[in-house]
Amino acid sequence: MGSSKRSAGRPSKPVLNREMIAQQALELVIDRGLDSLTMTQLSKKLGVAASALYNHVDNKADLVLLIQDALVSQVSLKGMLGLIDGEVTLTDALEDWARSYRAVFANYPSLIPMIAITPVSDAPQTLRMYNVVAQAIMSAGIPDDAVIRVIVSFESFLFGSALDVNAPSDVLDAGEQSTDSAWLKQAIGAAQAPSEQQQSTRPHAEALGEVRNAYAEPPFQYGLAALIRQTLELVEERV
Amino acid sequence: MGSSKRSAGRPSKPVLNREMIAQQALELVIDRGLDSLTMTQLSKKLGVAASALYNHVDNKADLVLLIQDALVSQVSLKGMLGLIDGEVTLTDALEDWARSYRAVFANYPSLIPMIAITPVSDAPQTLRMYNVVAQAIMSAGIPDDAVIRVIVSFESFLFGSALDVNAPSDVLDAGEQSTDSAWLKQAIGAAQAPSEQQQSTRPHAEALGEVRNAYAEPPFQYGLAALIRQTLELVEERV
Repeated sequence: MGSSKRSAGRPSKPVLNREMIAQQALELVIDRGLDSLTMTQLSKKLGVAASALYNHVDNKADLVLLIQDALVSQVSLKGMLGLIDGEVTLTDALEDWARSYRAVFANYPSLIPMIAITPVSDAPQTLRMYNVVAQAIMSAGIPDDAVIRVIVSFESFLFGSALDVNAPSDVLDAGEQSTDSAWLKQAIGAAQAPSEQQQSTRPHAEALGEVRNAYAEPPFQYGLAALIRQTLELVEERV
Repeated sequence: MGSSKRSAGRPSKPVLNREMIAQQALELVIDRGLDSLTMTQLSKKLGVAASALYNHVDNKADLVLLIQDALVSQVSLKGMLGLIDGEVTLTDALEDWARSYRAVFANYPSLIPMIAITPVSDAPQTLRMYNVVAQAIMSAGIPDDAVIRVIVSFESFLFGSALDVNAPSDVLDAGEQSTDSAWLKQAIGAAQAPSEQQQSTRPHAEALGEVRNAYAEPPFQYGLAALIRQTLELVEERV
């Protein structure tokens, strides 16, 4: 604010908190890669002494938990909450959650192996997501004993799909020197190249869970449709 | 060999080649983590000067390609080759390939993000795998224009499933202090704990594509069944 008087002494700095630490840690990973995610580098980026950082984060494992929670809190629960309220279908809720989940994690591919194996018990936003998803799909008629395998099978597919978003469009191209890849070449030639229209130009495309790599879309739709159908049948089997 | 004469001078060392380099690189990742996978560390492990390593591997990207190819060469193509010969069904071929693929990559979770985005054009074993899989599923009646989305959707699921194999069995446990996770707790309580029988004691379990974490099995079976069914229908739609 232009009218505020300059304070004496050191410039005021926002008080360190876990949200701020998570945000700066994610920036560090995006800007400089996963190898840079150390307590030392992070305290440098925050402009604080390492001891100050350790007041808020116990160790590297705690930092991973913090990052996981910050990412998961970005995943849309709108569809699942709508399902609980009886306002959207199971299909729409699963699709909303899955697209948003993939879009969030596609920004941080190098973190996925760590996050996939990090227990959720001390990550409140992550616990909340699983609890809402469990409540929603149970309320839609998924049997209690199937809830975990449904969630984990979707997540496995979503983690892998988030990685695929980052693959170059020619990741499967056989190249020129190969002589023994005639079938692969035929398959690639036959696969429809994504049209300009599929490359979304809508505003808020990212908020809608859309991703940049249009080549990743057909396999994602294919697998997601397979998982959703199988899940709908769990409900039908019950009635 | 006890009877061999001790040779004069330096002990003979096997000549450096790309297979040996890939093997030592994989050991380095397992023993000391992905961060240790540098050209410097690798040349140390190989006991050669960095310049000798650079005679065989151009740079880190080339090293990743080499590792990818070494891993992919471990994936079973038995089912797919059997499908080409008309000896096994499409379902059995997909299941053999998928289980083996997951088992191989489950050993190297930290490499998955890199491998998922590495173009295959200079990796001969990888090209061969894709070519055999494409030929096999085309011969079973999958339309040419669907082959790539089938393969990539399976791979997305398999990469994520390989990560899930490494998750601790309590990865979704809510813990004690949580108050807002009643639905999640109910779902976890209802999920069948894997029985002792599911924990395979068969010999050659790993060769059969089985993995250690039995908790990962129900979601894997669920998702794999969904993908296989959807793929079988691509054939049915044609006839």
